Amino acid sequence: MSLDGFVAGPHQSVDNPLGIGGTRLHQWAFPLALWRAPQGLEGGEINESSAVMAAALANIGATLMGRNMFGGHPGPWDATAPWNGWWGSNPPFHHPVFVLTHHARGSLELQGGTTFTFVTGSLEAALEQAQRAANGKDVALAGGASAARQYLVAGLVDEMEINLVPTLLGGGERLFEGVGDDLHGLEWVRTVATPRVTHLKFARP
Amino acid sequence: MSLDGFVAGPHQSVDNPLGIGGTRLHQWAFPLALWRAPQGLEGGEINESSAVMAAALANIGATLMGRNMFGGHPGPWDATAPWNGWWGSNPPFHHPVFVLTHHARGSLELQGGTTFTFVTGSLEAALEQAQRAANGKDVALAGGASAARQYLVAGLVDEMEINLVPTLLGGGERLFEGVGDDLHGLEWVRTVATPRVTHLKFARP
Repeated sequence: MSLDGFVAGPHQSVDNPLGIGGTRLHQWAFPLALWRAPQGLEGGEINESSAVMAAALANIGATLMGRNMFGGHPGPWDATAPWNGWWGSNPPFHHPVFVLTHHARGSLELQGGTTFTFVTGSLEAALEQAQRAANGKDVALAGGASAARQYLVAGLVDEMEINLVPTLLGGGERLFEGVGDDLHGLEWVRTVATPRVTHLKFARP
Repeated sequence: MSLDGFVAGPHQSVDNPLGIGGTRLHQWAFPLALWRAPQGLEGGEINESSAVMAAALANIGATLMGRNMFGGHPGPWDATAPWNGWWGSNPPFHHPVFVLTHHARGSLELQGGTTFTFVTGSLEAALEQAQRAANGKDVALAGGASAARQYLVAGLVDEMEINLVPTLLGGGERLFEGVGDDLHGLEWVRTVATPRVTHLKFARP
């Protein structure tokens, strides 16, 4: 998240999935060995953010995301040129991923253990489906902003990590827009401060 | 500033100068000895925020603030019951304070060395007047949000300390609203993380 509260820049598109300036929010992560490894890239940094990312990735058995994060286009799926996500043929998840959408679609099974299942039911039903697939491990809520807000407001988020980047985007998708004046049961638990990013962790006490 | 970017809560008024929930943004400061001393109060905590506050208060020769922070009411000054600020007869500034306003008014000289001078000229003229009064020391830009934004966009801010509180206000005055997608020449210089507040300092390199 930027200092002005945006988790994606303005004018998100297929050519610019994070919106204008949005990649600035992730530049702290790109050099990390832990970011590179799931993409099959060797080397990389180990720094103060590594432990934060390691903890966030540990014990994840499934991922939930909104349709906008999965990307492609709004509305019904294009049957002639189906959008299969931003991540190529071997996505970095390596576990089941559940995509919240209003438009039914068959599952996608890609390389490396990543499956995308498209879920048209309620937030709660999608979470239950992801929890069953996670088989006792945790479910990661990957985003985007709208999916994160909906689960937060529903009181279904148990842990939240804000990676705050000391920059301004000036527009785009605000994470905390219309979610009210409290953290829906979450409380601050720790901060890890680095030059590139401040990691603020919240959890249900 | 709250995690959702507000520096005051909604519905600011004479009875609720910081807006609904706005005092939550300052609760890290209230227990500090350095906060209490300028108000003539003894005792108080010394913690990780003390050094941050000490550095912010050091070498200040004058303060600039917007009319909304000085408070009272919008529009022309009420001559029959003049508003003399929130701070009583012995305000905690103890140096000259310059208030940006569209409505001319004579100066106020209060106890303890605080004077309020009402400035109707440009941002630059007000800053120059404060700099002359500061006599070689620094000028503090106290707020509110609108005054801070105007000086930031004008490129007239040399240092900025964001005291980020891990809470949501859900509405009110956003510090970074319409200021664009960069920090107007400021760069991150350091973070001090505490349970109650994260201090993010920016400066012109």
